[in-house]
Amino acid sequence: MPKINRYEDISQIDREAKKDFIDRHSPFVHCETEAKAGETFTVKVKVGNEYTHPDDMDHHISGIALYNKDTKLAEATMLAGALGGQGKKGNATVTFEVVLEKNAEIVAQSYCTKHGVWESDPVSVSVA
Amino acid sequence: MPKINRYEDISQIDREAKKDFIDRHSPFVHCETEAKAGETFTVKVKVGNEYTHPDDMDHHISGIALYNKDTKLAEATMLAGALGGQGKKGNATVTFEVVLEKNAEIVAQSYCTKHGVWESDPVSVSVA
Amino acid sequence: MPKINRYEDISQIDREAKKDFIDRHSPFVHCETEAKAGETFTVKVKVGNEYTHPDDMDHHISGIALYNKDTKLAEATMLAGALGGQGKKGNATVTFEVVLEKNAEIVAQSYCTKHGVWESDPVSVSVA
Amino acid sequence: MPKINRYEDISQIDREAKKDFIDRHSPFVHCETEAKAGETFTVKVKVGNEYTHPDDMDHHISGIALYNKDTKLAEATMLAGALGGQGKKGNATVTFEVVLEKNAEIVAQSYCTKHGVWESDPVSVSVA
Repeated sequence: MPKINRYEDISQIDREAKKDFIDRHSPFVHCETEAKAGETFTVKVKVGNEYTHPDDMDHHISGIALYNKDTKLAEATMLAGALGGQGKKGNATVTFEVVLEKNAEIVAQSYCTKHGVWESDPVSVSVA
Repeated sequence: MPKINRYEDISQIDREAKKDFIDRHSPFVHCETEAKAGETFTVKVKVGNEYTHPDDMDHHISGIALYNKDTKLAEATMLAGALGGQGKKGNATVTFEVVLEKNAEIVAQSYCTKHGVWESDPVSVSVA
Repeated sequence: MPKINRYEDISQIDREAKKDFIDRHSPFVHCETEAKAGETFTVKVKVGNEYTHPDDMDHHISGIALYNKDTKLAEATMLAGALGGQGKKGNATVTFEVVLEKNAEIVAQSYCTKHGVWESDPVSVSVA
Repeated sequence: MPKINRYEDISQIDREAKKDFIDRHSPFVHCETEAKAGETFTVKVKVGNEYTHPDDMDHHISGIALYNKDTKLAEATMLAGALGGQGKKGNATVTFEVVLEKNAEIVAQSYCTKHGVWESDPVSVSVA
């Protein structure tokens, strides 16, 4: 408490509304799975993959945090309206550049002002 | 992942180092358990109860978030040095004023730059 | 750009609407003017003194930052709804505890989602 | 107060140390100058252009905020160590995706834990 909602594979879910609900709230980590130690490594976090989320004043994605295992690397706060505002939908997206020194496990969390905290599947990055 | 560490009753723990570790990282919610609907309600969050935490540049409490169940109410970010800096110790503390409209369950999370996310015991507030 | 709006003494302003506009957006720093070096020092920042500000979804006070001269000590983010929500008004308020080691000049900034950045008068704190 | 440092054209500055100081602290906005209304528009903010900034625990770039005129669109917080940590240098960089509906004036601010707030030159974006 607060509940950490976790992504479920929506291809295993029948009900369209539930697929949409899970997908549009889940942060997806987009990055390579190999990195060079000490070099800039780009990680894009996009909330929603196949579906979009409202950018309404009272219902929007207001934050994205990026972790390497238990260590927070960075986070972003998005104000309502940044994706078009009332009546519009979109995918909150932020791209961070970080430097990894050893094998990493990248995970993102996002926060919806109506539906709380959501966590991505982790992505293992081997660093050499 | 990231792990959410939760407070454990340190009176049940024998090892002094472990008592200290758990206590100094845990956020404690200090507030009344009854509130009047629509009126200002004060919630103090103090990290650590009997023990203090370093305020070193590479090891400090950098954030406190306040939730009512799954809904984030507010959060605070503290820069290293705000509690005296290198070699000093203290209790990161922030007091929020919020307005509750119905029964609430207040919980806080804090973030240590070395030891990750910690969550308080929840406090039930009956609102009339 | 962005413009930093600064508090003006509203007793010198005739027009009621302008008094209200300036007062309800301005952060006010409430603290002692003397502190003991190395001890906890409490600073309360309250946005608005004689007037209150809406807590509407599209119009609320979303942030308060605390500086000692050019150095950021801490900041707080408040979600819309924390002060009662749509149709309600209040004074966004947060209390920080910091430790000062030498004479300080405390200043706060707040952010309104419709009317931008506002800055308090600074408060000089002599530290011994 | 706090001082807002603004980028100066370093080609007009002789002293190498001053060129480096100004450049490595200044956020640079990288985006197109034309956008389509209602479509995703990518804005990259990179702190430093020709020079890099330390990522030391007590001296790093800890925040980047993105504004359209007086309206905050988003902001990012970077923890010390995200760019390699003690003894390493880099360019704090974050890429936001926003939606613009009419002509915009994009400006970024960054915060260095030792040298305060820095503001980019604004970029005018014509939106059709």
